[in-house]
Amino acid sequence: MTEPTPTPREGTRLDPWYGSYAQRAHQMRASEIRALFAVASRPEVVSLAGGMPFIGGLPLEELGEMTRRIIVEQGEVALQYGSGQGDESLREKILDVMALEGIQAHPDDVVVTTGSQQALDLVTTVFIDPGDVIVAEAPSYVGALGVFRAHEADVVHVPMDAEGLIPEALEQTLARLKAAGKRVKFLYTVPNFHNPGGVTLTLERRPRILEICASYGVLVLEDNPYGLLGFDRDPLPAMRSMSPEGVIYLGSFSKTFAPGYRVGWAVAPHAVREKLVLASEAAILSPSNASQMAIATYLEHFDWQGQIKKFQVQYRERRDAMISSLGEHIPEASWNVPDGGFYVWVKLPEGLDAKSMLPRAVTARVAYVAGSAFYIDGSGTDHMRLSYCFPTPDRIREGVRRLATVVDSELETVRIFGNPGGAREGTVDFPAPDIF
Amino acid sequence: MTEPTPTPREGTRLDPWYGSYAQRAHQMRASEIRALFAVASRPEVVSLAGGMPFIGGLPLEELGEMTRRIIVEQGEVALQYGSGQGDESLREKILDVMALEGIQAHPDDVVVTTGSQQALDLVTTVFIDPGDVIVAEAPSYVGALGVFRAHEADVVHVPMDAEGLIPEALEQTLARLKAAGKRVKFLYTVPNFHNPGGVTLTLERRPRILEICASYGVLVLEDNPYGLLGFDRDPLPAMRSMSPEGVIYLGSFSKTFAPGYRVGWAVAPHAVREKLVLASEAAILSPSNASQMAIATYLEHFDWQGQIKKFQVQYRERRDAMISSLGEHIPEASWNVPDGGFYVWVKLPEGLDAKSMLPRAVTARVAYVAGSAFYIDGSGTDHMRLSYCFPTPDRIREGVRRLATVVDSELETVRIFGNPGGAREGTVDFPAPDIF
Repeated sequence: MTEPTPTPREGTRLDPWYGSYAQRAHQMRASEIRALFAVASRPEVVSLAGGMPFIGGLPLEELGEMTRRIIVEQGEVALQYGSGQGDESLREKILDVMALEGIQAHPDDVVVTTGSQQALDLVTTVFIDPGDVIVAEAPSYVGALGVFRAHEADVVHVPMDAEGLIPEALEQTLARLKAAGKRVKFLYTVPNFHNPGGVTLTLERRPRILEICASYGVLVLEDNPYGLLGFDRDPLPAMRSMSPEGVIYLGSFSKTFAPGYRVGWAVAPHAVREKLVLASEAAILSPSNASQMAIATYLEHFDWQGQIKKFQVQYRERRDAMISSLGEHIPEASWNVPDGGFYVWVKLPEGLDAKSMLPRAVTARVAYVAGSAFYIDGSGTDHMRLSYCFPTPDRIREGVRRLATVVDSELETVRIFGNPGGAREGTVDFPAPDIF
Repeated sequence: MTEPTPTPREGTRLDPWYGSYAQRAHQMRASEIRALFAVASRPEVVSLAGGMPFIGGLPLEELGEMTRRIIVEQGEVALQYGSGQGDESLREKILDVMALEGIQAHPDDVVVTTGSQQALDLVTTVFIDPGDVIVAEAPSYVGALGVFRAHEADVVHVPMDAEGLIPEALEQTLARLKAAGKRVKFLYTVPNFHNPGGVTLTLERRPRILEICASYGVLVLEDNPYGLLGFDRDPLPAMRSMSPEGVIYLGSFSKTFAPGYRVGWAVAPHAVREKLVLASEAAILSPSNASQMAIATYLEHFDWQGQIKKFQVQYRERRDAMISSLGEHIPEASWNVPDGGFYVWVKLPEGLDAKSMLPRAVTARVAYVAGSAFYIDGSGTDHMRLSYCFPTPDRIREGVRRLATVVDSELETVRIFGNPGGAREGTVDFPAPDIF
């Protein structure tokens, strides 16, 4: 009864199919962080980790009645298979949404996807062979890095500053990669209210970035889930509006309406769009008609722009709660003040390591995402991402207070025992499910 | 103003991103068939092509009220992001569905997907490197071939007879591939009411097929969308029920309930399941909570088994209409009589080619799928797949009558000009969107 259990080495002994996996699958491993996030999802924990939107503010009674009518009156369409490219009436309404950022397009240019995550996956499927280079901001959206890693891409980060991606750094990187004979397929960028960086690419830099990419023959993948969620001003023109042939644009209803329907979209140059549709049909046949009709009906009959304005007010209030709490409780750290979106990117005081601190934070009933999730090589442990989108302002303040106790205790340890952090090697985690 | 337009050669001149595509994307091309199917979807055409279920029989009033209550009462969950593996209460109910085919599993073994098509894509992502071999029935489901092709797999067909996949042929094929040093990753099989073949793998053959695969270290991918739609008897035990560690099982609600929610699932050995979840999170983050809750509530509160019995009666009546019409109007052809599912696999009279005949059929206002769609090499043009799932019995009879006029006219041509068919080279089409 006390026989020794064999130690599983990468599943070689316990997994009979270990020898059958594709190359790419060997790096698909659940990180320890996932177990941690299972704990972090308990109600007593204040999660500043997830990018879950605050959907409590939606008019649920009216939305319920809307979905009832869709099934009763158009059920034979809503419950049936649909077009691989997506419902045409939804694609038309998506044009209205994009017009707010200056995009002019035709419904034929739009491909509806299962969240914009699927669009990321399709673009990567269509463009990336193993070893191809994707240039991306440092840091970058963890879910995009997950897709790029799953496709065995070589991700090269380019730094940002308070005005977004730095054109000179991009140009130097592309020149260096070209000189090294590397094949750069696209630039992945989140220009508005960056995840996790919180910054926005200025209007002045946008054409410059597009010119640099054009001159190196590099496609731009503009991922824009947060563009309409600015607090202080109208949205900037999308990069797609400045270069229809040089940009694939990704949009989403997950942050401006609701992620539960899983509806996003891509807008791409004609020939690319055709391949995206074929890739999507191979992957899922067609997106959900029921979901698409819910979104299309919402856009048709509800004041969706008014709802976005409400979200802006709510998120602004939450950002304010977070920023003032940080100033009050963790003044040793530094951070940017985002003017839209969901995230504050916090630099920890010298000597602290966000990744090794996380278990202690969760024990103190507060969760965040360590900065290492947003770098392909697992660097960035001196940062953490704090989300203010989901908890109420009171909960945010309480979360930051709890975090402050952990930071103080870590700083005390560093003062006594010195800095154990610096040399810590970055390890790569496959993204946990709820850190969007 | 009359300058010659350059002839686009694979888009080399017109597509600025032609040089950037991944290897796999170069074969993603829309076939001429797609344009044809756009015509075929007009209401005046009787489509015997699509695998769209007959969902007019669903209780739409009650389903509408159900979805209203989900949004009103549980909207904050239904409209939010969910778990990458899928909603746990749905995964529990899926066990009840699978129990009808003798499968015993744990909710942890189930991965919910965006239709079982996504499960196909995930399994292929996890197991297939370019050039790996997948063994599949001849013919095979067109949507699976599309996924396998997109992943650059080498598909090797094994023949079926009236009792399903032929064990001796499978063994010979695996032996031959092994001798040739080929790496066979899995057997893809639709054991029940095969698409397009219409046949069912007999109970006697199931353990034999599993043994052969086990002895060659080949995983079995059991795709079972139609298993509960038999006309004459209870479902056979699933292959998964006989070999939990040797089989990945795929299920779907698209044929037994409604495809519009895009909900399917995979059941896999533990270590494989973990990789499928990671691959799914990279692809779509999480399946739609709204869709999953609709299915789970339907399974909880509706007589879903009674609804399946109604479908069985309706589809049986449609099969009977098709079989009797074929006997009356196209006696020169031959076909099987399926005892479940959606499809009749028709062998055309000598000399006829289903692919070249299709435009004339659509002109005569009837559509089908040419057999070539179901072979990786585009062979099989002497067959066509006729679906009886969607049109009413009267429309089915009208469709077969129209088809008979086309067949008669083709036969007349063959009689006068001889047989132009035999030497026709098979060409490969990427699957059209509505031929499931």
